[in-house]
Amino acid sequence: MAEDPYGLDRVVGEPGVLPQRAQRLDPGLPIRPDEMLIDVESLNVDAASFKQIKESCGGQPEAVVARIQEIVRERGKMQNPVTGSGGMLLGRVREIGALHPAKGKVKPGERIATLVSLSLTPLVIQEVRGVRMDVDRVEVRGHAILFASGIWSRVPEDMPETLVLAALDVCGAPALVARYARPGMRIAVLGAGKSGALCLAQAHRSTGGKGQLLALDISEKALSALAELGVSDVSLRVDATRAVEVLEAVKQATNGALCDLVINCATVPGTEMATILAARDGGTAIFFSMATSFTAAALGAEGVGKDVTMVIGNGYVPGHADLTLDLLRTDTRLRVFFSGRYL
Amino acid sequence: MAEDPYGLDRVVGEPGVLPQRAQRLDPGLPIRPDEMLIDVESLNVDAASFKQIKESCGGQPEAVVARIQEIVRERGKMQNPVTGSGGMLLGRVREIGALHPAKGKVKPGERIATLVSLSLTPLVIQEVRGVRMDVDRVEVRGHAILFASGIWSRVPEDMPETLVLAALDVCGAPALVARYARPGMRIAVLGAGKSGALCLAQAHRSTGGKGQLLALDISEKALSALAELGVSDVSLRVDATRAVEVLEAVKQATNGALCDLVINCATVPGTEMATILAARDGGTAIFFSMATSFTAAALGAEGVGKDVTMVIGNGYVPGHADLTLDLLRTDTRLRVFFSGRYL
Repeated sequence: MAEDPYGLDRVVGEPGVLPQRAQRLDPGLPIRPDEMLIDVESLNVDAASFKQIKESCGGQPEAVVARIQEIVRERGKMQNPVTGSGGMLLGRVREIGALHPAKGKVKPGERIATLVSLSLTPLVIQEVRGVRMDVDRVEVRGHAILFASGIWSRVPEDMPETLVLAALDVCGAPALVARYARPGMRIAVLGAGKSGALCLAQAHRSTGGKGQLLALDISEKALSALAELGVSDVSLRVDATRAVEVLEAVKQATNGALCDLVINCATVPGTEMATILAARDGGTAIFFSMATSFTAAALGAEGVGKDVTMVIGNGYVPGHADLTLDLLRTDTRLRVFFSGRYL
Repeated sequence: MAEDPYGLDRVVGEPGVLPQRAQRLDPGLPIRPDEMLIDVESLNVDAASFKQIKESCGGQPEAVVARIQEIVRERGKMQNPVTGSGGMLLGRVREIGALHPAKGKVKPGERIATLVSLSLTPLVIQEVRGVRMDVDRVEVRGHAILFASGIWSRVPEDMPETLVLAALDVCGAPALVARYARPGMRIAVLGAGKSGALCLAQAHRSTGGKGQLLALDISEKALSALAELGVSDVSLRVDATRAVEVLEAVKQATNGALCDLVINCATVPGTEMATILAARDGGTAIFFSMATSFTAAALGAEGVGKDVTMVIGNGYVPGHADLTLDLLRTDTRLRVFFSGRYL
C-alpha cells in the first residue's frame, strides 16, 4: 500500500483534494499502516467556531452539543462549515501503525494532544459526556485518526491537562512571536484572550523587558486580568473594529511612533484595519485571528498606503508545543492566569 | 482644521468608519487643504466588479453605463455593492491642497493614475463618454478626490496609457517580490496572468538569472506565452487547486528540494495548499490572489506540519509603480506580452 502522509485516501468523493478542504472524511476503521488511532476524550473547539455555534443555537448547551454531533456525523470531522475552522483534541493512543513516524516514540495508553486542526482529522463521536460552554470544550467518547504528517504532543504530567490543552491549542502564536519580537520593539497585542496572553508573555521574554508592550481589548475586565501578568506596559481599552479609535489610542500611547509589531489575536471580524493602522510604516502585522479576512487586509493596507508586512499566523512552528509549555512552567503568573480560566 | 489623511470627514453618517467600509461618501467641492482634486478621464473597473455588472445587465453596454452611474450617484464612489471591489482611475490633476503630500511633486494638468481603490475614492460622474466592454473600462467626465494617504502615479508619456493602467493595477506584486527574491533561490509563480508575468520578470531580475524559476499554470497557451518572456526555467502545466499534483510536479522539477519562495497569482479559489506544499520547510509563500482564504492558508500549513512563512500580498509597496513601469520599459519581451493583451 502506498504511503499517504496527508490522508488523501480518507477523503470521500473528491480525489486529490486534501482532507481540510474536503466536504467529508471517512473516519472508518481499521487504520492504515501510516496512521495513528486515538481514543478521544475531549474536543477543544476553535474559539471562532464555538462562538458561531453558540450564537446560532441561542446559547443553549443542548443545542450546541446537537449541532456539533450533526457536523461530525455529516463531515466525518469537526469542521464548522461557517467559519471553516476546527480546534484540537485530547485522548489516549490506542494503536500506532507500523509506518507512522510516532512508532516507537509513544505507547498505546499514553495521553496526547493533536496539534493539527480538527478540520482535517477523521473523527467519530460515540457519545457526548458534557459541554463546557465557558472554555469551548466538549467531553466525548469516540475515536480520531492522525496521519503521518499530523503533529502531536505528549501531555505532560506536571500540569493539569485542561491547562495544557488550552495552551497547546494556540501554541503556534507565541512561537511565531518569538521569531519576530526583538529587544527595543514596540509591540501591540489585540485581544486579551489566551492567545493574546501567551503572545504578550513571549513578547516580554523576547524583548527582555526592553521596549514597550501594549495590550488592547474591548473588555476592561480582560485587560485587568492581563495586567496582572505583569508583562504589558500599557493597557488600552478599545473596540478593535473601530480602526481609527485604535489608531488614536496607539498613537498616543507610543508618542506618535506606532508599533514595530502588531499581533492580532481578536475573536471578532473586522479588526484588520486596526491592526494595520497600529503598525508603523515598515512594521509587521501577524494575524492569528481566524476571523481575519484576506481581502480586507490586502486591500485595506493598500487603501491607506501603508507599507506593513502582513503575516498569516501559521499554527505550526517547529518546537511550538515545548516553547508554550515552557512559558507556562516557568511563569507562575501566566499559569495562574490560565488556571483561573481553563481549569 | 484637523488633518484627515484617511478621509473620515468624507464618510456620510457613519462616524469613525473608514471610507472603504462606508456606505456613502460625500464627493462635494471644494476640496479640503489635505486633499487632491482630479478631473477624471476613465475608470478601470475591477474585473470581478465589471463582470458582475455586465452579467446583471445581460451584457448590454447602455445598461452597464446606467448601473455604474447609479452606483456612483448613490454611494459617492464606484464600489460595487455586490463584490465590494472598486478599480482605479486615470485623470488629470486639477487642484492640490496646500497640505497634500503631492504638493510640489505634481502640477495641475499632469496626467496621473490613482493607485488606491475606487472603493474608497469620492467620485462624481458628470457624463459617460463611452464604455469598453472588453477591458472593463468607462470613459467619463467627472471629478474624484484623493486623500493625503492616497497613493498615485504619474502616467508616463513613453508608453500607451492602457498598458500603463494594466500594469499599475498589479504593481504591488513585483515590488514585493523584489523584497524577497535573492540570487540562488528556487522560485515558483502560480498563475501566468499579468501579475504572474510581472512577478516572474522581477524574480528573474532579482536572482540575476542565478537560481531556478518555475512558472505554473493550468493553461498550456498561457504557459507558452509566458515562456516567450525568457524569464522562467521551467513551465509546469498543473491545476493549482490540486495541491498534491502540484507538489509532485514541483518536487520533480527541483530534484526534491522544493521552492524557497512561492508566489500565488492564481485567479481561482482553493490554491492555498498547492502554494504551501510547493515551498520547502522554512520557505516563504506570498499570496497575491484575491481568492485566497485566510483560514485555508493558516490551518492548511498547520495541518500538514509545514513551517512556511505566509505573507499577505500588500498592494502597496513604496516605489511599486516606478519599479513596475521600469520593468516594462526595460524589457521588450514583457512589453510585447502586455501589449498583446491589454491594448
